[in-house]
Amino acid sequence: MLNPKRTVADLKELRSLTGDQNGAQRVAFTPTWARARKWLRSKVEPTGAEIHNDAAGNFWATLGGKSEKALLIGGHIDSVPNGGWLDGCLNTLAGVEILRRIADQYKGKPPVTVRLVDWCDEEGARFGKSLFGSSACSGKIDMDETRGLKDKDGIRLVDAVKEHGIDFEKVKDSGKELKSAAAYIELHIEQGPVLLDLGLPLGTVLGTFGVERHAITFRGQAAHSGSTPMNRRRDAFLAAAKMSPEIYEIAKRSGQGPSRTGGVCTIGSCTTKPGIVTSVVEECRITLDQRHLDADALQRMLDEAKTASERFAKNGNVDVSWERIWNIEPILFNNELIAMADAAISESGAKPHRLPSGPLHDAAEIARAGVPTVMMFVQSLHGISHNKIEDTKEEHLELAVTAFDKLADRAIHWIGRGD
Amino acid sequence: MLNPKRTVADLKELRSLTGDQNGAQRVAFTPTWARARKWLRSKVEPTGAEIHNDAAGNFWATLGGKSEKALLIGGHIDSVPNGGWLDGCLNTLAGVEILRRIADQYKGKPPVTVRLVDWCDEEGARFGKSLFGSSACSGKIDMDETRGLKDKDGIRLVDAVKEHGIDFEKVKDSGKELKSAAAYIELHIEQGPVLLDLGLPLGTVLGTFGVERHAITFRGQAAHSGSTPMNRRRDAFLAAAKMSPEIYEIAKRSGQGPSRTGGVCTIGSCTTKPGIVTSVVEECRITLDQRHLDADALQRMLDEAKTASERFAKNGNVDVSWERIWNIEPILFNNELIAMADAAISESGAKPHRLPSGPLHDAAEIARAGVPTVMMFVQSLHGISHNKIEDTKEEHLELAVTAFDKLADRAIHWIGRGD
Repeated sequence: MLNPKRTVADLKELRSLTGDQNGAQRVAFTPTWARARKWLRSKVEPTGAEIHNDAAGNFWATLGGKSEKALLIGGHIDSVPNGGWLDGCLNTLAGVEILRRIADQYKGKPPVTVRLVDWCDEEGARFGKSLFGSSACSGKIDMDETRGLKDKDGIRLVDAVKEHGIDFEKVKDSGKELKSAAAYIELHIEQGPVLLDLGLPLGTVLGTFGVERHAITFRGQAAHSGSTPMNRRRDAFLAAAKMSPEIYEIAKRSGQGPSRTGGVCTIGSCTTKPGIVTSVVEECRITLDQRHLDADALQRMLDEAKTASERFAKNGNVDVSWERIWNIEPILFNNELIAMADAAISESGAKPHRLPSGPLHDAAEIARAGVPTVMMFVQSLHGISHNKIEDTKEEHLELAVTAFDKLADRAIHWIGRGD
Repeated sequence: MLNPKRTVADLKELRSLTGDQNGAQRVAFTPTWARARKWLRSKVEPTGAEIHNDAAGNFWATLGGKSEKALLIGGHIDSVPNGGWLDGCLNTLAGVEILRRIADQYKGKPPVTVRLVDWCDEEGARFGKSLFGSSACSGKIDMDETRGLKDKDGIRLVDAVKEHGIDFEKVKDSGKELKSAAAYIELHIEQGPVLLDLGLPLGTVLGTFGVERHAITFRGQAAHSGSTPMNRRRDAFLAAAKMSPEIYEIAKRSGQGPSRTGGVCTIGSCTTKPGIVTSVVEECRITLDQRHLDADALQRMLDEAKTASERFAKNGNVDVSWERIWNIEPILFNNELIAMADAAISESGAKPHRLPSGPLHDAAEIARAGVPTVMMFVQSLHGISHNKIEDTKEEHLELAVTAFDKLADRAIHWIGRGD
């Protein structure tokens, strides 16, 4: 029988084992992460599931079913440094609880195969590139880029993963794990304040935002702060600064289309050269991160930002150039699974609510690989994650495990019917 | 007889001796600067002037007159690294030419004493604090602050100056050099584009701007760029960015008072924390440099900037704090000497024009010490200095030497009449 309180107890046990006064310390490819993984194995073993790590270091626990077709339940036990107690491991430990329920209910032989996967290095905290294990599994990993990654001590990713039994050149072999995958579900804390503001414990995730990430550089002319009249300045900071209120307008307009779901735009950093108190700024570089669930709306947001930057540059007699840092298309989840998640939430006594995910998740990689996918969010207190103050009410955690289990149950029967 | 072409030749000789392909390298307290000083002595000796260095390393060349009352002609031969060929040394070498003319004309005994002073370390390029020699002479030097200065290699100022014969603890003894000073005049390149824009070769300087220099820090909340709705953000960069167009408005209004001479405001640097592409900015620090010739107008500019920062902070639900980095009051030059400078410019065939000085100069220190002071500016091409492209037309350099000499002549007679 499902015991959501046990999941909360497991979470607390993991926190004691792998956290300190600054928060969770389960950075992938570190001894603390390896300890967490060993502990996870000890929790799964009693269910009788077959356990192995794949070529990319992803941990798989499989309860073979009457059908080979498999429901995948995914999470990640790795964390950022000084992280929260829920991000990633909630999913994995809710999955462990569901394996326990299913092993018990079906005496080890469910109608379809049920697999827990603990992805390897979702956060990318050490090497700066997230979704290592899931992108290897989906086949979308950029081998050349990833091969070149080093941590801040200069240690290469390829050497670090080797210490954990991973041959980097073979990580894409993990793709074979998806061969019989029929559905993928993932529970996660929201990491934002939407459910909190609505007073709702749970939400169904429609997909993950597409992202356009650019560096924008304005170039003017350094000039003495005392001797240069205001109307003679070519002030790179002035042009860059005007972008900040502008992106709020652009984001606002992006929510006025047919979907009514707006995007977000963020200027996360600003650097100035020469950057001294006595000179007009010659060069100002800002980063712009734009996200939207609708590909056309995302493109419109980008176009509008480019047009605005050119207008501000022209008005200020400075130059502007754009450089793409990274982008990804929006990834939409499976409509049938979305309906099942809504139903599971209702059945648990909560009000269903659909929302997009701003952050990326392993679920997006698996959806890109063609596996029908959905995620469920549970409310975050403070709307904050990647921080030791990250938290969720225990009653909401328990409700989340209950609803997520009902989603698993519906998915199992859905897969079974399709077989 | 005055020979302005000789001054241009001297400037070129100094450039060959102490510059390289990147510009002038006469940074104070370096071997190149010492070489320039030695060369300067060789240029002055033929005039028969008494030469000595004072306690702060300022170089004095004195033609004793019938009266002890002295006209001081000041400049600085030190430069920034990769500096221009005129900043500072034009003054000194124009002064050398005037000494030659006076020694020749009066057979070594002018009506009043005439003294050339080459100030020690005007630029402060090595230790980050300008006006070393002139502030020691005026007595306004901050001994405690200056005593603690180190260069980028960790060498202490007190040790570096010792190598050039200066006992740091005694630098204020140089103040006695001002005992008989009756007027101080200084010629300098404008370092800005005002005369260039007006098509005028020369200008009379009304005084140096007062300066208010602050760091302004806005503090909001770091939040995930994907999961945080726009209306939930406490974006420190947004509030800081709004200051940029605002300071242009503030500067504009500051020129609409009775004086009609506007001030300038500059945001020279911007730093963001955490400063990553995926987070709303939690903390944004900008520097604000404000300058005006009128003390009340400067105070108004500061008040307006503070009020605006508080409004932007409130609107954006962030905090703001101000920290003063440095300030100095406006320093107004002597009205009679200003009139003489206008007359000298007219007499040389140019149109007089009065303007404030944005940058500080040694002249400001001497004016603060109570010596009647004026400066004359010569047009800068490109409006740029502290750069190897700094330049002035040779015909304007020659005209400047001519007009500056006429100013010296008028000042000598003015001092003589007052005696």
